Formats: sequence, structure tokens, C-alpha cells
Amino acid sequence: MENPLGEGGEGLHDWLVALKAWRELVGMEGGEENDSDAVVREENANVGAEIMGRGKFGPPSRGAWGEDPWQGWWGDEPPFHKPVFVLTHHEREPLTMSDTTYTFVTDGIQSALEQARAAAGDKDVFIGGGANVINEYLGAGLLDVLELHLVPILLGGGGARLFEGIEPDVTLKQIRVLEAPGVTHLKYRVVK
Amino acid sequence: MENPLGEGGEGLHDWLVALKAWRELVGMEGGEENDSDAVVREENANVGAEIMGRGKFGPPSRGAWGEDPWQGWWGDEPPFHKPVFVLTHHEREPLTMSDTTYTFVTDGIQSALEQARAAAGDKDVFIGGGANVINEYLGAGLLDVLELHLVPILLGGGGARLFEGIEPDVTLKQIRVLEAPGVTHLKYRVVK
Repeated sequence: MENPLGEGGEGLHDWLVALKAWRELVGMEGGEENDSDAVVREENANVGAEIMGRGKFGPPSRGAWGEDPWQGWWGDEPPFHKPVFVLTHHEREPLTMSDTTYTFVTDGIQSALEQARAAAGDKDVFIGGGANVINEYLGAGLLDVLELHLVPILLGGGGARLFEGIEPDVTLKQIRVLEAPGVTHLKYRVVK
Repeated sequence: MENPLGEGGEGLHDWLVALKAWRELVGMEGGEENDSDAVVREENANVGAEIMGRGKFGPPSRGAWGEDPWQGWWGDEPPFHKPVFVLTHHEREPLTMSDTTYTFVTDGIQSALEQARAAAGDKDVFIGGGANVINEYLGAGLLDVLELHLVPILLGGGGARLFEGIEPDVTLKQIRVLEAPGVTHLKYRVVK
């Protein structure tokens, strides 16, 4: 509960939380405006809905949601400001926190994508993670662009690995690399 | 024997073999002069000796070398042009191919490093891989700089993973990122 990203995992986001673009998303003033700031703005600019795994929404305990279910790691003012679709095996009524509504999807990644597309209108759908969720969409041929923010931190064993189980027939084309303080922003197109 | 880097693995080096810097190393004319060319020149500029695993020298068959042992993947004119120290569990006399002498080291990574340092004089020692060898030196605190050439190819399962088994107390600091055609050049300092 105290280390949702694993011990030391918060360091993966040190570059992010310092940014003006991030602080705006969480209702704070100030912050750095560097190359990372522009990347975050670009990444969010045309997104109309997000899909995430249950682990990005709440603690990794599994099973039914229970009577006093978790309201999300993200608090009363989530940074998403758009419809969020949470993949889970357990039904739950939609939850609205400020201007973010979480919809819980129990019938798979294709259904979540359809619902997110409908919610996004002519904007993009963002697959927010974790790694297992991205792997599922990538393996199913449903990703168009893969954007990675590479931070040189080693977290030890036990985590989910991006690209685990993805077959060599998935082809990526490097479309943009950007060096910024403490992070490398990598952008690939999935060739179809 | 036909796919020393695994099926499709040669694609990892497409960016490299096109370069003028590489073609010079293997005695060929022509080639591209782009940002990758400069990276390869810089990487090799101050190297006085290389350490590699047995798999970079020869086929992954293990055991004693036998009576007609493999002369190296690299042919009669190896691209190294410097002393090479091959980690192996099986003794073998040194092998000279053109201006490269392979010395086979059976008493571990520390011994290989000491021998390579002596051979390199005041130049650097290059740990050429594979991943398991780099992991061993990194985990033992014996690497100063980690230089990666990231190519977006998925090779399927069964390969060695860089960083496998490395503990979180190994700290890397990003010191240079460079985008080039089909590859991202990443350079990290190991913080000590």
C-alpha cells in the first residue's frame, strides 16, 4: 500500500512530477518547462479516454471489490480529466471523482477499447498501463504508437516486464527520441 | 550455427554494418557517416582490450574445445584489432587471427579484467558482451560506463536479458542520448 510502484519505483516518475505540465494536471502551480514538459503536453493533447489495468487504479489485491471499495490511488482530484476504463475481472458500478469517471470493464480488452473509443469521439485512446495491459494490446495488434519514458532505475525482481510474451512478428519503427533530464523519451510506431 | 544472434537477431546490427566506421574495422571501403558513425568511433577510440563471453567468440555449444576448435565467428580478419579475452570454463591456448589475439580465461571475470587492463595499458577495457557477461561485471561493481544501442526488435523468448539479477543498489546516471537512423544510443555512468 505504501509503495504502489514497488520499493524505489516512485523514482520512475521524478522527471514527471517536477513538470509544469504535470502540476497543471493535478491542480498545482509552478513547475519546470523543459523538453519533458513538451512531451507530456503532446502525449496528452489529443487523448479522449484512457484504459488502465486494475493495478494502476488501485492496490494489487485481487478478488471482488467489497463493500467499501478503493476509490483509486489518484484521490479526489484525479489527474486524468477524461473517461477512464479499468480492466478488472470483477463487476463494479462506475465511479466518478471530480471530472474523471472510472468505468469498470469485465469483458476484456477489445470491449474496453470499443467503449473507450466511443467515449473519446475523434480523439485518441491512451493505454496507460501497467506493462501487462500494454503487452495485451500490443500482442493483439491494437496499438498504433508506443511511447516509452526510459529511466535508468533497477527495481529488482517480481515486476511485470514490458514486451513479455510479445512475438517477433510485432514490428516497431523508431519515430522520435528525445533526451531530457533523467529520462529518455522514446516513441515507436507499430508497423501493420 | 546459422543464426548466432537468434532468428532475426542480425537486425540488431543493421544500423552498425552500414557505417563507414564499421566497414573500416573489417577492411571495407565506403559506408555511411551519420551520428551512429561518430558514436562507434568514440566508443572504440580509447579501447585497448576487449573482454567477451564464449558466445560472442563462438557457437553456444559448451564443453571442452576439442581438437579442431572454432576459430571465432569473426573470421581471418577480426574487427577487434586489439587483445581479446574470452571467458570460458575450458582451457585453451591463445589464438592469433591477423592482429587480434584471443586469450582464453578460465579463472573468472576479475582475472579477465586484470589481464585486459594490463594489455590495455592506459587505455580502456571494453566489455563486449553478451548480456550475461555485462551483467556479471555490472553486478560486481566493475563497470564505469554502460553504453547501449537500442534497436526496436523483438526476438522472442530464450535469450539472455540485460540487467537480469542486478540489484537495485546499482545506480545509473544518464549521460548521453542520441537518436540515429533505426537505433538509439544510450550512455550511462555507473554511480559509485
